[in-house]
Amino acid sequence: MSLKKIKVFAPASVSNVGPGFDMMGFALNKPGDEIEIILNGGSEIKIKKISGDNSVLPYYIDKNTATVAIQSLLKKYNIKTGLDIVINKKMGIGSGLGSSAASAVAGVFAVNKLLNLKLSKYELLEHAIAGEFIASKGIHADNVAPCLFGGFVLIRGYDPIDIVQLDYPKNLYCSIVYPDIEIKTCDARAILDKNVPLKTAIAQAGNASGLVAGLLTKNFDLISRSIVDHLAEPKRAQLIPCYNEIREAALSNGALNCNISGSGPSMFAFSISKDKAQKIGRAMLRSVVKGGLKGRIYVSKINDKGPVVLK
Amino acid sequence: MSLKKIKVFAPASVSNVGPGFDMMGFALNKPGDEIEIILNGGSEIKIKKISGDNSVLPYYIDKNTATVAIQSLLKKYNIKTGLDIVINKKMGIGSGLGSSAASAVAGVFAVNKLLNLKLSKYELLEHAIAGEFIASKGIHADNVAPCLFGGFVLIRGYDPIDIVQLDYPKNLYCSIVYPDIEIKTCDARAILDKNVPLKTAIAQAGNASGLVAGLLTKNFDLISRSIVDHLAEPKRAQLIPCYNEIREAALSNGALNCNISGSGPSMFAFSISKDKAQKIGRAMLRSVVKGGLKGRIYVSKINDKGPVVLK
Repeated sequence: MSLKKIKVFAPASVSNVGPGFDMMGFALNKPGDEIEIILNGGSEIKIKKISGDNSVLPYYIDKNTATVAIQSLLKKYNIKTGLDIVINKKMGIGSGLGSSAASAVAGVFAVNKLLNLKLSKYELLEHAIAGEFIASKGIHADNVAPCLFGGFVLIRGYDPIDIVQLDYPKNLYCSIVYPDIEIKTCDARAILDKNVPLKTAIAQAGNASGLVAGLLTKNFDLISRSIVDHLAEPKRAQLIPCYNEIREAALSNGALNCNISGSGPSMFAFSISKDKAQKIGRAMLRSVVKGGLKGRIYVSKINDKGPVVLK
Repeated sequence: MSLKKIKVFAPASVSNVGPGFDMMGFALNKPGDEIEIILNGGSEIKIKKISGDNSVLPYYIDKNTATVAIQSLLKKYNIKTGLDIVINKKMGIGSGLGSSAASAVAGVFAVNKLLNLKLSKYELLEHAIAGEFIASKGIHADNVAPCLFGGFVLIRGYDPIDIVQLDYPKNLYCSIVYPDIEIKTCDARAILDKNVPLKTAIAQAGNASGLVAGLLTKNFDLISRSIVDHLAEPKRAQLIPCYNEIREAALSNGALNCNISGSGPSMFAFSISKDKAQKIGRAMLRSVVKGGLKGRIYVSKINDKGPVVLK
């Protein structure tokens, strides 16, 4: 039985995760994007509506990550079909929570199901990356891959892309605070040094390796010690008002550690119980409010499913 | 009962291990250094004899890694004692097999036992590093730590030093070929770039993380894909005659991968059976001999003991 329409959810994600700049990320249970796609019987792809946090997002299908990803997929398999698309954004663009990746993933995941293409997630990945490229102007999979595969993902390398799904302690909770400002990924990239000292590269590799070991061996102390970013955070912290206060709030309330989610302004903190994670989230939010900003919090385990079809 | 003399063995080690430049290493069952230490009843420390591969090593106790390490230890605990020391080197200096680290570790391990100090390996570590410093002119623990702790070691960071012992597949075999030339660690360091592109740092961290994940999950394909070094190997390969031929010999005989051991000239290759490891070792040696050099091979599992007291 072929479908006429489908509605899917794709999760937000935290990339970088401290030492995993451009090569680690994990998916969240919330927030996330919803996309509805309807076979319109014609030959054109149209974005009919964008609701939620980002009504300013482009309706032009060569500019929206969802439709760029979908077009990439349809082109590869030489499929011509008309689609009406409704996007309900549940997080802001420039939030640091993988908003553009979630839309791209939701798009290709939905089309795969709607057209019964039976493509694997590995086959969908390159098209989601193509969508993400429009937003970030770079080939990055550290939001797209965890959003698509779920769980905690290491991108070992990009040539060819090598996705490693890492096991992690199932009682790991993530508190997110999303201060209500926008940081464009391209701006957050522009301030990074193009070259780094050899010692910095070694330190980053040490912490990234430590985080992987901590996750796989469920060593919370090691996870805590390893969430240090020598590449991006020293530059990007200045873009986030109250960065120090948010971090201090998380740590003083028992977080394993706290760092920037993606290119910010959202920040994440790990802890090992729901109660503690909620307390940490509230404390992080108070720091944001004290700094004169609005903000919101999300408390979530790591999402191990990735995108799902909604009833 | 207090001892009058002791004889210990400390193992060779492979540092860097591809992507783990300055922060990963593992110990070998062979070769290694033997050190005998005798309480001489006086107040002076004397190197009585250095035999084996390195009779050219300094007898001056402020220049030899074993005695520098021992002096650092005795000074910290304010111990004054006279020692006669006999060093039997089983590998060349400048072999890339952690020769200087093995002597430093053997020295402090032996003194700890001889004087019944009951210091932990963590307490011994800083003194072994102090010994190693004399040889490499830098604070490096990627030979010292695996030699002392045994097994496969990640040095997550140096400030403070953070040693993480990684589990690994117990059927992992290492073939070593040691071409008979000397590469001084300081020369091999001098040719490295002091700054590296951001992308290179990310690639290194990705492979280091992949190697850790591969070891901990016993994923041999992932281990194989991850043994890529973007920091040192591209520069150092040129110092090793027949580098390409040795590597090709290892890979074409079924090695998981092959790279430089430490700063070379020794090269290591992983495989998953003793037969294969021996075959790989012989093939690597043939490449060395074809290139007009002498060489020797070692085939070993990863040593999980570190230094031991000899009867």
